[in-house]
Parts: sequence; C-alpha cells; structure tokens
Amino acid sequence: MKKLLIGSMVCASVVMAWPFTPHNTNNFSKYTNPADAKLRKEALENDLIPIPTDKSKLQKYIQINTKDNPLNPAKIELGKKLYFDPRISRSGLISCNTCHNLSMGGVDGIPVAIGHKWAANPHHLNSPTVYNSVFFIKQFWDGRVTTLAEQAGGPSTAHVEMASTAKDIETFLNSIPTYVNEFRESFNGEKPTFENFTKAVAAFEATLITPSRYDDYLNGDDNALTPEEKKGLKTFIAVGCTDCHSDIALGGTRMETFPQLDDFKYENVGDYKGNKKGETKVPTLRNITETAPYFHNGTVWSLREATEIMANTQLGMNLSKEQLDSIVTFLKALDGRKPKIDIPQLPVRTDKTPVPQPDLNLK
Amino acid sequence: MKKLLIGSMVCASVVMAWPFTPHNTNNFSKYTNPADAKLRKEALENDLIPIPTDKSKLQKYIQINTKDNPLNPAKIELGKKLYFDPRISRSGLISCNTCHNLSMGGVDGIPVAIGHKWAANPHHLNSPTVYNSVFFIKQFWDGRVTTLAEQAGGPSTAHVEMASTAKDIETFLNSIPTYVNEFRESFNGEKPTFENFTKAVAAFEATLITPSRYDDYLNGDDNALTPEEKKGLKTFIAVGCTDCHSDIALGGTRMETFPQLDDFKYENVGDYKGNKKGETKVPTLRNITETAPYFHNGTVWSLREATEIMANTQLGMNLSKEQLDSIVTFLKALDGRKPKIDIPQLPVRTDKTPVPQPDLNLK
Repeated sequence: MKKLLIGSMVCASVVMAWPFTPHNTNNFSKYTNPADAKLRKEALENDLIPIPTDKSKLQKYIQINTKDNPLNPAKIELGKKLYFDPRISRSGLISCNTCHNLSMGGVDGIPVAIGHKWAANPHHLNSPTVYNSVFFIKQFWDGRVTTLAEQAGGPSTAHVEMASTAKDIETFLNSIPTYVNEFRESFNGEKPTFENFTKAVAAFEATLITPSRYDDYLNGDDNALTPEEKKGLKTFIAVGCTDCHSDIALGGTRMETFPQLDDFKYENVGDYKGNKKGETKVPTLRNITETAPYFHNGTVWSLREATEIMANTQLGMNLSKEQLDSIVTFLKALDGRKPKIDIPQLPVRTDKTPVPQPDLNLK
Repeated sequence: MKKLLIGSMVCASVVMAWPFTPHNTNNFSKYTNPADAKLRKEALENDLIPIPTDKSKLQKYIQINTKDNPLNPAKIELGKKLYFDPRISRSGLISCNTCHNLSMGGVDGIPVAIGHKWAANPHHLNSPTVYNSVFFIKQFWDGRVTTLAEQAGGPSTAHVEMASTAKDIETFLNSIPTYVNEFRESFNGEKPTFENFTKAVAAFEATLITPSRYDDYLNGDDNALTPEEKKGLKTFIAVGCTDCHSDIALGGTRMETFPQLDDFKYENVGDYKGNKKGETKVPTLRNITETAPYFHNGTVWSLREATEIMANTQLGMNLSKEQLDSIVTFLKALDGRKPKIDIPQLPVRTDKTPVPQPDLNLK
C-alpha cells in the first residue's frame, strides 16, 4: 500500500542539515475531490499554511531562527544535550525539559511555571510549548524577542526559573572537555560562550517540528481528515479563528489585544497585562490537546471552554454547541507526529566543575 | 574486524522478553593470555561476576525482581512512560527521572535529594543510581526492601519526594484510557492499581543494565582493559575492596557497618545512621564516575577522596598514592554502555484527570 516518496522530498534531503520528521506519505490519493480542493483553497486564502513536505521549502519559515545561527548536525546534537542538562541551572535540578517537557506536548502541564526553590512565575505565567516554536517570529507571551536563541537566554538566567547566570553557564561548560570540544565542532572552533549556548539550544529546538494529519490534508491527502474534521476546519475559518491563528503554526506570528471585546473571567489571576501596547502573542494551536491548562495564566483546563472564551473575548461571538464541538473536533487533528528523540548521555563533570547550589533550607 | 556473535547469545534472544543492551563483542581475542586467565580466576574467586553475555544466564541475577513480576514488552514500555511521567507526583512536576536521571548515570548529581516544594531529604540522603539496580537484593540506603517494585512505592508517596498517594496514583492512571489499556495489556487484563504501577516501573528499571569494558574483560576479551586498568583491578582485589563491593553489581547485595574502623569525617551531615543494626547497603560501583557526590549523605565530590575515605573507614588502611590512583583507574573502567532510550510520548489527560497540586505560595 505504500507509495513512493515524492521526488522533491528526496532531492531536499541534502538541503538542510537537520532531522526533519518525515511526513506520513501513505494513503495519498491520486485524485483530489473538488470539495477538498475548494476547502484547501479557502484555507490558503486565510493564511493557513501546512508544514511543507520538503526541507528546502521549510527554510523560508524558519529563516528568523537560522539567519545568525546556521544549523549543523553537531550543533543540534550539542543543543539536545544542553536542553536536557539540569546542570545549566543553579540548583543542578532544572533543565529546559523540566518546563518544556518533550514527552508532554513541550509543556509542563501545570498552570504556572515553577522554578528555582519552587518559585512560581511572579506573573502567574504558563509555560508555552517548545514544539514548532521555530516557526514563531515572536517569543515569550509578550513577544519581547524574536529568536529562539534570545528566548533560551531568558529562563536559564531568570532567578525564578533556572536561576543561573551567563558567567556561571560559561564556567560550567568550559569545565567539561567534552562540551568544549562539541562547541568547537559546532561553532567553527569557538569555545563555549553564553551566546553559543543559547544558539545550540535553539538549533535543537528548530528540529522540534510536528507535522499532523491537518498538514497531510492541506498537502493533498484528501483522506487525512475525517468529514467531521473538515467541517470543523470550515467552521474554524468561517467564524474568524484564522484572523489570528494562521500561518504555519496557527499562531506565533502575531501580537493581539487580549481580551478584546469581552471580559476574560480569569483576568485577575496574575498581573500580566501584555506588552507596552497591551498585546499578547497569539499562541500556536498545534498539539493544543496536549498543552492544557490554557491561556497565558494557565487558568482553563478544558479545550472546549477555552474555545468558547476565545469566541467571546476575541470575536464577540456566542458560538452554538454544534459550532464549538466542530471546532474542537478540528483542533484535535492538529496533534502532530513527534520527532523520535533518544535521551542524551551527558558528559561527566570534572574537578573544575562548580558544585550545584540548590539553596536548600537545611536543618 | 567484527567477529560473529557467539552462539549462546543468538539462542538466548528468545529466552527473555526485554531489550538487554548488547555487549561489545568486537575485538575478542581467540587466545587468552595466561596472565589474564589468572586475573580472571582471581576475580571470580573474589566474587566478581561479569554481566553475562546472554540473557538466559542473566536471569539468575534478576530473579528477585522478576519472580512476582514477570517481564513482558508491553509492561516495560508502560513502565518507561510511568518512569518519565511527572503527573505521578502531587505537583505534576517531579518524575522518577528527576532524581534518577537516565542522562546522568541514573542520579541527580546533587548532594541531597530534592522533592515536593523543594524539600530536602530530611536525613540528607543522596539519590542512589537506578542503573543496574535490578541486580540489588536490598533497596534504599538502609536496605529495608528487597525488590524494585517495593522501592518504587516509596518515593512516589513520600511527602518530601513525589508527595502523591497510592489512591491519587490509581485515580490518575484510571482517568486516562490509554494507560488503562496498557495496564490491561501488561497485567493479564487487570486495570491500573498502585501495586501494578510499581511493578511496571520496576519492569522498565530491570532493563537499565550497563555492561562495561570490565565485563568484556571478565567475559574473555583480554584487550578490553588497559594494562593500567588490569593493575587497578589487581589492587582493588588485593587491598580488600571486594570484601563488600562484589557480585554482579560490585555492591547492592550486602549490608555493612559504615563507618567501621575509623571516623567518617562528614558523619554529622544529616542524621542517617543505617538500619536497626547500624548497617548501610553497599552501593554499586558501576558507573561510579557519573554518580558523584558520594556516600549516603552526598558529601564527597572526588572519587579519589571517596576511595581514600573507604580505605580508611572500612579497611583501616592508608593506601599509597600509587594504590589510590590505580584503584581509581580501574573504577573508571566500570563506566557502562547505556541502553538507548527514546523519550516516551505520554498519554494526554482527560476531563476526569485530577489537576496537579503544586502547593505554591502564590501572592
């Protein structure tokens, strides 16, 4: 039953040096149903863009993260180690994967991020997903930086998160010869620096792309979505969700006022009010079933309730039960195929490695 | 240069249903040097047992953990998910892998274990490694239980560790249909129970075996150890380390008084004094370079210093600089080949799943 890979995928395999998760290319129909062709056209007109099936086409969507940080296999592998290394944190216990857990949709699954010494995020902010974040052109809820590398420099040094410092991270990395060698290999002979640390983490994160049945459908597989999901996609477009949740990640590329047209009933949980203009980054909807609780302050556990709130606050609409169910049915089709990740074996400390500082209250 | 696998390994592949890490069977010499044959005999006489190269022979060393918990592939895969699932904990943030990190020698690399609400272990106890713990016949520092399943029930419900309860864990697991199905598949149709939870975790942990060059040497590869490492092994035996650090894990099978013949200079860090008889489990020396800081209270970062302390306190000996260096050289040959582990994708919560309780101090 398996069809051959399309030619462009094979050609593209040499274009970029990163392990892009292959699309499901089974069951592609040769003939496109006119109704599906129409729905695809409509999706495209509303800026819904599938993850391309070949790497060279992907490049234009990840430019912002690769311009000053070209990917190479050594850098990606190094970045994976750093992503899983809790010794980057002051305590030695918190890694990037603690809050952006790759086993759980790239999030921690708790309302408010917890960091060093069990500190809650002071603004009651929820950890956003790392999956597909390479497609974002705004990072953090207030969109204050543009690249994944800049983002990685934030939590690693925030005192309520990993609580380290740029200097401590450099000292740690330079104390371990394996890391020093891997940085030299990844960065044209350069030794570990804080900037290169953030770039290596970003390089690994750039591989965390999760194509879904939604992408398969938009890429031409009529049977990738069920009739109910196609109906949900139509509703999603018709009511105006795509005004904000569009582009390749259905989010991550726009800043919007939230709430806009109606009150958000959990608005007083935490003191976050957006950027200077009062705007918040539109989050991705990819893998949305895995990333509860929802909203910047992690206040809503139900995807249906979150959808209803969005319709009220952003579109000023009271959706029917049927419309809500239909949209939620579609959203579930955004669950993506995760890249296969072997846990890394981290290089062992040396006598020069500073000991962790968990700042415990010992008797 | 590659030699064929020995016949017994091939035959044994059907004996046990778990993914035993293959030994390095390259470079096996056909002829055994008489000096190596003599050293192997000496090792055997001192109860040093290599990890066997075939699964059927391994069985006798893991009997205690498989007798009431027969392994099967579904149970192992389920156990892997549970091992990495932080939702087992009250907060939703701490998994087995937090303190027994498979990327870091199966430990957390910090002096004292940190749990729920950043609590330090009240006795200042250090997290022991999970790698090769299937070989132990005593679990915990005070050896109070015998099986890995019994061990898994401890931290998951200790209020200073994962802070969950048997009932909460059962409620959580039964709220997620994927978990329910995987338990039924793993346990002859049974639904999730706390006991089965601990058994599934133990089944996964039973796969965490790390054969090393030391094993290759004892299994017949003359060239697996360097001349310096062989000399170190001789010293290790000669001074009496094998009186306690013997059997297949070089530890894990005996309880001993510590300190015995001399004071332990960090004795007053924490209030742990062993079991009722004042005895402590002899820890494994496998992967010892990766499991600093050392001792039950995690007080010593240097392997050389730890070795020196052990010679003083347990053997009443002041080793020469040369003897110490030689033993440490040998100990490094116990670094094992880790099993390749893909991070699991955890099943998504449902509306019936209780929300996590991180017990934060929110303003």
